[in-house]
Amino acid sequence: MSVYTVVSDEAFKAWVEQYHLGELVELRGIAAGITNTNYFVTTTHGRYVLTLFEDLQLEELPYYLKLMSHLARHGVACPAPVADRSDRLVSLLAGKPACLVTCLDGSDVTHPDAAQCRSVGEMLASLHVAGDTYPARMDNPRGPVWWNRVSATLFGYLGEAEADSLRHELHFQNSQRFLHLPHGVIHADLFRDNVLLKGEAIAGFIDFYYACNDILLYDVAIAVNDWARKDDGTLDDALATAFLAGYQAVRPLNNDEKAAWPAMLRAGALRFWVSRLQDFHEPTAGAMTFTKDPGVFRKLAEDHRQRSNFWL
Amino acid sequence: MSVYTVVSDEAFKAWVEQYHLGELVELRGIAAGITNTNYFVTTTHGRYVLTLFEDLQLEELPYYLKLMSHLARHGVACPAPVADRSDRLVSLLAGKPACLVTCLDGSDVTHPDAAQCRSVGEMLASLHVAGDTYPARMDNPRGPVWWNRVSATLFGYLGEAEADSLRHELHFQNSQRFLHLPHGVIHADLFRDNVLLKGEAIAGFIDFYYACNDILLYDVAIAVNDWARKDDGTLDDALATAFLAGYQAVRPLNNDEKAAWPAMLRAGALRFWVSRLQDFHEPTAGAMTFTKDPGVFRKLAEDHRQRSNFWL
Repeated sequence: MSVYTVVSDEAFKAWVEQYHLGELVELRGIAAGITNTNYFVTTTHGRYVLTLFEDLQLEELPYYLKLMSHLARHGVACPAPVADRSDRLVSLLAGKPACLVTCLDGSDVTHPDAAQCRSVGEMLASLHVAGDTYPARMDNPRGPVWWNRVSATLFGYLGEAEADSLRHELHFQNSQRFLHLPHGVIHADLFRDNVLLKGEAIAGFIDFYYACNDILLYDVAIAVNDWARKDDGTLDDALATAFLAGYQAVRPLNNDEKAAWPAMLRAGALRFWVSRLQDFHEPTAGAMTFTKDPGVFRKLAEDHRQRSNFWL
Repeated sequence: MSVYTVVSDEAFKAWVEQYHLGELVELRGIAAGITNTNYFVTTTHGRYVLTLFEDLQLEELPYYLKLMSHLARHGVACPAPVADRSDRLVSLLAGKPACLVTCLDGSDVTHPDAAQCRSVGEMLASLHVAGDTYPARMDNPRGPVWWNRVSATLFGYLGEAEADSLRHELHFQNSQRFLHLPHGVIHADLFRDNVLLKGEAIAGFIDFYYACNDILLYDVAIAVNDWARKDDGTLDDALATAFLAGYQAVRPLNNDEKAAWPAMLRAGALRFWVSRLQDFHEPTAGAMTFTKDPGVFRKLAEDHRQRSNFWL
């Protein structure tokens, strides 16, 4: 359940008066997501999603919301934020920064097929190319500096084998240099639950609140690590191949990127291994309602370490 | 048939490379509309409408396309223009200015019911209010100066009764002063074929290429003259009442507007009476494929002249 902040119909009606969206028909809480509060909003004009931000501050949000506007305007499938009468995309509701975005048709898929992986890869490449003309910048708060710092606080909680394995991955990543690879806007969290599909077609990417400027290939690695992952925790050859083929149909990887790909898959696994370990061992008071298994990404990092074929 | 300019798949594929829209699936001409060439475009990213402008020039189009972007961004149901890699909304294709906009679900309705008229009225008021923050300006090329000038060239074609009636309407309008009424962005052509509906809901207003800055009430009159018009050419009380109730739910008319309403309905009828007479008697060479009956608006103007109840 992800309605942390309860909004009454009355409070919402008063707030939505700032918009040109007709009259409220229904306001209904959404029981998904672990960070923010979401509602489905139906007005006489259409369907929207209301998000109340539990952590992000009002002044942090324009980067994400203007990015979504920019991408939607360029044909990347994602929700388009709605502007109010003062042309703002975000304002306070119930004391929280709140925004409305268009509601997309489609649903997330837990076991994607190759055609769907191909579509996601293609749309991710379109996002990367369309991000080229987005003027704002946001450094990735969860890069190498972050994972080294956080890991140092976590070793005390870990068994010897896991601590050794994590140390091995950190050491390996610290030996890598990726700065020569193409940079740009990345989604940074394009897991299966952040893509709405209608059959093979992408209804939209959602949840852009980890988006930032970083190495494009890192975004591909994060996505492939989830989209191609089988229930046994290893990657599926057909799904990974399809994802990369879709991606490269729009933005072919250069030789430096191809050379860096195996290490980047490990970087993508390490980032979520560390964040899940942190959520598990040092949960933020009250915030998390369920914790995801860090072991998934440990297994994946270790599997990548031994792998010889990386589908490129 | 409104495909005046034929675009080959090859020419289109080369042009659409400028966009982030994935790969072309289908390009199909649309047999509707009388001014421009339209195609349905399906790519791996979604469905769009391609418009090639037969009369409007490249430099005239940003007013209309940025207006549609502005309105869509503020929750007014209308197609959103797609920006290309250079952030342009329009560029040349087959020698014509061309744009892509999102394709809306829904279809036009020839015999709307009261609920649909109410929805259209409500959305039109939202357009008028949302237009407040649109910064660009475009004078209405089809106002009183235009209809007086054009009518002078038409009297020679008309029978005595029609000429007298037209002269009467021109004289009446020349005696009216509307400049004290609220101004803003108007659609200026919100006929039934320019609204896509899904049941009672507005999927979108389309064809913004007569939009301009003018008196808001004039836009309401143009729309009511079409949406409430029965097959016998007179207005239906229930439909007109429903349209105005929907409009006023969002933007209540002030007393000046209420007082001007009967005269404004006549102005709306006069504008299309004159333009249809012009199309009928002085057709542009080659451009028109079918001509609409000017008599509809003569009848309406004369009916308004005698009416005593105007639903306000």
